[in-house]
Amino acid sequence: MKPLHLAIVGATGAVGQEALELLEKRHLPLASLRCFASLRSAGKSVVFKQQSIPIEHLTPDAFQGIDIALFCAGGKISKEWAPRAVDAGAIVVDNSSYFRLDDRVPLIIPEINSHALLPQHRLIASPNCSTTIMLMALAPLHRVIPIQRIVAATYQAASGAGMHAMHELREETHAYIEGRPFERTVIPFPYAFNLFTHNSPLTESGYVEEELKMVHESRKILEDDQIRIHATCVRVPILRAHSETLNVTFHAPFSVEDAYAILRKAPGITLVENRAENRFAMPIDASGNESVLCGRIREDRSHPNTLDLWVVGDQLLKGAALNAVQIIEYLQGKSKTEKIHD
Amino acid sequence: MKPLHLAIVGATGAVGQEALELLEKRHLPLASLRCFASLRSAGKSVVFKQQSIPIEHLTPDAFQGIDIALFCAGGKISKEWAPRAVDAGAIVVDNSSYFRLDDRVPLIIPEINSHALLPQHRLIASPNCSTTIMLMALAPLHRVIPIQRIVAATYQAASGAGMHAMHELREETHAYIEGRPFERTVIPFPYAFNLFTHNSPLTESGYVEEELKMVHESRKILEDDQIRIHATCVRVPILRAHSETLNVTFHAPFSVEDAYAILRKAPGITLVENRAENRFAMPIDASGNESVLCGRIREDRSHPNTLDLWVVGDQLLKGAALNAVQIIEYLQGKSKTEKIHD
Repeated sequence: MKPLHLAIVGATGAVGQEALELLEKRHLPLASLRCFASLRSAGKSVVFKQQSIPIEHLTPDAFQGIDIALFCAGGKISKEWAPRAVDAGAIVVDNSSYFRLDDRVPLIIPEINSHALLPQHRLIASPNCSTTIMLMALAPLHRVIPIQRIVAATYQAASGAGMHAMHELREETHAYIEGRPFERTVIPFPYAFNLFTHNSPLTESGYVEEELKMVHESRKILEDDQIRIHATCVRVPILRAHSETLNVTFHAPFSVEDAYAILRKAPGITLVENRAENRFAMPIDASGNESVLCGRIREDRSHPNTLDLWVVGDQLLKGAALNAVQIIEYLQGKSKTEKIHD
Repeated sequence: MKPLHLAIVGATGAVGQEALELLEKRHLPLASLRCFASLRSAGKSVVFKQQSIPIEHLTPDAFQGIDIALFCAGGKISKEWAPRAVDAGAIVVDNSSYFRLDDRVPLIIPEINSHALLPQHRLIASPNCSTTIMLMALAPLHRVIPIQRIVAATYQAASGAGMHAMHELREETHAYIEGRPFERTVIPFPYAFNLFTHNSPLTESGYVEEELKMVHESRKILEDDQIRIHATCVRVPILRAHSETLNVTFHAPFSVEDAYAILRKAPGITLVENRAENRFAMPIDASGNESVLCGRIREDRSHPNTLDLWVVGDQLLKGAALNAVQIIEYLQGKSKTEKIHD
């Protein structure tokens, strides 16, 4: 395998930092690494394999000679710069939401739908964090008996709002406990011992954008426009792992035992539960963990053909940086993941 | 109205303390007040109307001359002592779960089913906190178009596990932020920036007891055994207010506008939302608030006849002490609540 000329856009952010750690830890062979970030990071550097890499600004010739550009900044940056990276000859792996629903762009979770990534694709999107964590557990079940409807409620961490939000949650909580005043600059609502509807824009439909991402991205990834999905996304005072309770109605009966058997073998999933101690997966188990944790599979006694599952995943890892790095590994033919099909 | 000879059992606990504050604030006329608690509170006293009331132990003659005994201790204490209080001639208002599903015992939320409280009843149960908070919003809708199925997910506060749990959440979080070790004595799992399945016993069915309370108590209060209810109860790092997302399927179409109109007039409910700012009810709004806060009513696009609602209520107030005090007020003919029927 030829070592890569890799660029990371948004290298100083929460996801960019995790991506750098993963690239180092997973020994992806690199010929060169360039790190880009916004003007706020001017003069900074990042550390990779004990070397200091200077942070550069994006310029028209930034992607010359780059094989793969990993975008870990927001949608605006991707909108403007991802097409330029493609024009310069790079393949773009994009963590932002900007291109995810574009018909020409594959939306990839390597364990689930790597078949959708074709040789002609030069821009590849990595899904929304809540969507990825949900589908890691549901896609293997959906392959066996199709899903009719999902009712999801999320318990989402600060990390989804970025590194500064994680910092602010800690600082605001510290101030609250000590009775000190605190001025928020990142999170729109009080966050110390508090929770609120996910702070993505509220749409006319009554759903916030995060909830609609779970609907539309799931349908695209599962290649099934008939799946009905309802989500309620809530930001809770947790640092970096999202939890979700998933109420899933299938087109036919699905036994709890079969669901456990399938998920026990599913790639990227670890079953975590100790029923004797009423101990299921918690955010602290998932933080820093590359697996999506699943368990507490119950037969829903209120409705036929319905199971309820509990999933927890690191928002920065499988929810973002890890999935993107896995896409790069797949492109490099160095997939550490196992596909469900074939 | 004749001033009451009142006894409070569990007067030093989180709910007992709130009950004392409410009795003072709401000016319930008292002829005498006796406060009971466990041996751990020996020698302590509580303050009521600027007077110090000594904490007594329960003895066989504790309820002599008592008109109403408010039980704010656990199920074991109620099991043993509530019948003795009744035998001594007192009416018991019980906050514990012990008698709630007993056919001979009415389970009362005054705004919803005070008609079920009959003159011959000497023991009256106050419902589970999550159940009360849910039904405050759903009962007024159910009266208009019956509910077929509820899928509930909760975001429950520490207060439901008692005063010491609230203290431990603060202390553990403080230690976590400052990197100090901390030894838990109340909560079974790490709680600083963490969450976990509700720590009531896990039953054979896969549901924890808290979830089954929401099922069975709701059916009893709404007098409808056909309502199908599925709940997932989660303990989140919040101090004293429970939040719930409620996905509710009715037997016929229910418009969002009609739901708002009904809940705007519903007793004990306050609508809280500012859609321009994506600002819905939060635990900090509900803490110390006697109303159950509701909003974010959405049409669920994934299923016919289905609405989704967001409710937040103070677990110690309407979830426990306030509801019990309202039952006492109703018994005294001094109801500050308005009934839905009649």
